[in-house]
Amino acid sequence: MLLPESIQTLVNALERLPGIGPKSASRLAFFFLRASEDVAQDLSVALANLKANTAFCQECFNITDAGRERCEICESPKRENSLICVVEEALDVLALERTAGFHGKYHVLQGVLSPIEGIGPDDLKIKQLITRVARGGIKEIILATNPSMEGDTTAIYLSQQLEPMGVKVTRLARGLPVGGDLEYADQNTLLRALSGRQEMS
Amino acid sequence: MLLPESIQTLVNALERLPGIGPKSASRLAFFFLRASEDVAQDLSVALANLKANTAFCQECFNITDAGRERCEICESPKRENSLICVVEEALDVLALERTAGFHGKYHVLQGVLSPIEGIGPDDLKIKQLITRVARGGIKEIILATNPSMEGDTTAIYLSQQLEPMGVKVTRLARGLPVGGDLEYADQNTLLRALSGRQEMS
Repeated sequence: MLLPESIQTLVNALERLPGIGPKSASRLAFFFLRASEDVAQDLSVALANLKANTAFCQECFNITDAGRERCEICESPKRENSLICVVEEALDVLALERTAGFHGKYHVLQGVLSPIEGIGPDDLKIKQLITRVARGGIKEIILATNPSMEGDTTAIYLSQQLEPMGVKVTRLARGLPVGGDLEYADQNTLLRALSGRQEMS
Repeated sequence: MLLPESIQTLVNALERLPGIGPKSASRLAFFFLRASEDVAQDLSVALANLKANTAFCQECFNITDAGRERCEICESPKRENSLICVVEEALDVLALERTAGFHGKYHVLQGVLSPIEGIGPDDLKIKQLITRVARGGIKEIILATNPSMEGDTTAIYLSQQLEPMGVKVTRLARGLPVGGDLEYADQNTLLRALSGRQEMS
């Protein structure tokens, strides 16, 4: 064994994280050794109670503090109740909140439909979304699943379920990313940008 | 606040690690939430006792288990006592051990000479190296500090100290890296490869 056991254990634990290979893992482990004691301690404490301290919002299924039934966004009187943005994961809520351009509420599906991985409608929070809509008061549902095969499939499935309920269903626009280069855009993105072209003015 | 406090604390702790930015930090935090409980727990435990469980070998100053005076390599009867490889950090020992091509012992300087950062000979484990050599029985010292400005300066300083003691002092070879491309080699490396050329035989 090349490394002392306590460091090897840490390297092994770090190697299990996504995007961290054997070399980064040992580099990180030695960083903790060199850094002040509290760098490792803070992380250790934060990890220890992570799951015990978090829960899912019973309204939108975003992540929230344990013991709370509804998340901050669902409880906020400042957010529009009639507008729901449907996303795949809690991380997507974070990305949308950073834009500061959405003032409605969210619904986190906690996944996407994926027949290959055996994930069907019952594995996602779709039933709960339909219950929310059935309660009334919702004017528009923005489908913000990823612009991928699975995201699109999920969006189509949801719109088929929601449109008959008399609610407006929209999907995030597709086109050239801001700051992007026409020359490097892939064929499908360019096609979408063309067909979705908008009037200047 | 966008994130529940327990997750925000974790994101903050992760952001302090080298090579992990705000986006990777929140991605990792959500990975811990989704992954099985023991992924976070194992890492938490490994971090909690890291410093308490490790110590420096009193012979070569490599990292070792707490409570141990000398590391595994220093205590091994299979390693040559007459050959010492001097490296900057414990991570370098790991890199050299992976080659399985060195059978002597090590000496970890725990840094390099760097006048800019105010690191002088007394801040490194140089005195301890000289004591080891003065004890006798050492035939060759391989200077394996990095091929950088600081590493070279340290190597020159060490050879000036060690050569008068009647010990052979060598430095790791410089030249083209294996699998490298002559066309992409920088000027200095190519110059070193030329001046250090060896006879085919």
